[in-house]
Amino acid sequence: MGGDLAPRTAVDGAVLAARRIDTGITLVGDGEAIERELARHLDRAALDLTIVHTPERVAMDESPTQALRRKPRASVKVAAELVAAGEAAALFSAGHTGATVMASHAAFGMLPGIDRPALAATLPARGTDARPGKSRAVVLLDSGANVECRPQHLVQFAMMGAAFARAALDVAEPRVALLSIGEEAGKGNELTREAHQLLRTAPVAFVGNIEAGELYSGSADVVVCDGFTGNIALKVSEGLVETVEDMLREELAETLGTRLGWLLSRRAFRNFRRRVDYAEYGGAPLLGVAGITVVGHGRSSAKAVRSAILMAARLAGAGFIEKLKVEASAQRAS
Amino acid sequence: MGGDLAPRTAVDGAVLAARRIDTGITLVGDGEAIERELARHLDRAALDLTIVHTPERVAMDESPTQALRRKPRASVKVAAELVAAGEAAALFSAGHTGATVMASHAAFGMLPGIDRPALAATLPARGTDARPGKSRAVVLLDSGANVECRPQHLVQFAMMGAAFARAALDVAEPRVALLSIGEEAGKGNELTREAHQLLRTAPVAFVGNIEAGELYSGSADVVVCDGFTGNIALKVSEGLVETVEDMLREELAETLGTRLGWLLSRRAFRNFRRRVDYAEYGGAPLLGVAGITVVGHGRSSAKAVRSAILMAARLAGAGFIEKLKVEASAQRAS
Repeated sequence: MGGDLAPRTAVDGAVLAARRIDTGITLVGDGEAIERELARHLDRAALDLTIVHTPERVAMDESPTQALRRKPRASVKVAAELVAAGEAAALFSAGHTGATVMASHAAFGMLPGIDRPALAATLPARGTDARPGKSRAVVLLDSGANVECRPQHLVQFAMMGAAFARAALDVAEPRVALLSIGEEAGKGNELTREAHQLLRTAPVAFVGNIEAGELYSGSADVVVCDGFTGNIALKVSEGLVETVEDMLREELAETLGTRLGWLLSRRAFRNFRRRVDYAEYGGAPLLGVAGITVVGHGRSSAKAVRSAILMAARLAGAGFIEKLKVEASAQRAS
Repeated sequence: MGGDLAPRTAVDGAVLAARRIDTGITLVGDGEAIERELARHLDRAALDLTIVHTPERVAMDESPTQALRRKPRASVKVAAELVAAGEAAALFSAGHTGATVMASHAAFGMLPGIDRPALAATLPARGTDARPGKSRAVVLLDSGANVECRPQHLVQFAMMGAAFARAALDVAEPRVALLSIGEEAGKGNELTREAHQLLRTAPVAFVGNIEAGELYSGSADVVVCDGFTGNIALKVSEGLVETVEDMLREELAETLGTRLGWLLSRRAFRNFRRRVDYAEYGGAPLLGVAGITVVGHGRSSAKAVRSAILMAARLAGAGFIEKLKVEASAQRAS
């Protein structure tokens, strides 16, 4: 029920996903509103879609702590509890990110050895092994779940990000880097200096610090940082792509010839912007909780919702949480 | 003597500046190398250029603290001391940023009421009052001088950034915003939450928090943050513009028609990248020290050096340090 276009795009996305996979999908929220959206799809009866009606929802501008306390039957809370009860394998929400994080945490608990959950954004990256016109990906975490982190949290993020890159992006041995403001171990703030030392002996392929200018360069598969820094990096990217696009459009709209240039480059731009906007890439998994949660952007399109649901189903099918548990225990023992 | 192309681009930039303004320019560094570069310019004798020979320099990979201690006659140190002695009005360096900050701090001391210096990067911004194809600017500080800041430092940065926007960008009443990860006062980390409260009563036109996605939107003229966050925002922007450009080129190089699209959009791109790269915009002033220092990027072109020297001369001519002193005292008294 969350997101700017709820419940329409969530329902449409679920319909698109249900046409692709055999897994049943449960839609949690205002039953009548959901039914109305479903009725627009002619093949609705043939799809494995169930509705669980909830009378309450968390609005985008509510405090998540207060909202979840005051609304025990809020859609995101009920959905997380369905997963915790084993009636569903994974949760997707395009609603209030904070509420989704808190509801998941409350319903699933944390993985052993993990203190904080992290949102893992998947961003486009350049790379020599990329096909022409295609690009590799880089996983940035935490991209916004925790504003304040301690060094050991970044080590946990590194381990979880590497496990995600292996499971979801088919990277055999993910190279993990620490986002800082200088490549040398001694550069950066207190958090990055201490995290650098811990990462050197952590059971991940740590390639050292990278500067923010290298984030998209393909020199690392997983980049760890605190959630404040990660969110800044992510949002600056979204804003900058819009700005470049705007300025280029102005410059290129001058004559017929340059207008042609704009038409030709516009599609390439739109593709890139989608990939920077993490939800369009399929949503950001919330790593660290003992269950699968994929968080979508409030502006998620139906296609983005579909991708996110497919990602959630893929992670569930691969036994991702069990794998993470094993790795987290191994790390704790080391 | 610093920077990737030293001393050639620094000398060429000084020559370009000397052709434009009447102010004499002193070149500090290896006298023989500087003379060799100057000899390439036929009008050299007609220009008001003086050389001060120094036998030492700080290399880009040295620790600034150690280098400045071990090399009392390093070019950046001698240059800062010339300014402190009143033999020059301002310092420009495209060399080691840390060494330039430390040498300036040591030679000039701090302005009364200011605890930490800040690098102010000028970035392009959109805005309704911009001419077509042109854009306004936004001043981002600290963009890398201090990795750890306290809330009161951000208030000092706000005041200095506003004074700089008035003096250098002709903004009558600069709107100051705090960079955070949510617009609400309660969002963000400890630093931004406390700084938000202080800024509300500070003698600046504080417009509240802005998210990183709004940095280039033109909704603020001055944006304050700690130097770690500012450097991440700046570097991510540089890296992303390169990445977008690369990906667009690949996509557009496919056919003759799309190749034309690339040719048409390339110049617009190059212009934008220059403006994101702060040195190309004319260098970043180091605000807070009791003298004028403008810091250039290590990759500064001769044109960038010229712009930075002209900015330094303009700030000196406008009595910028005296104005800042008055404002800093007024703020301290309030």
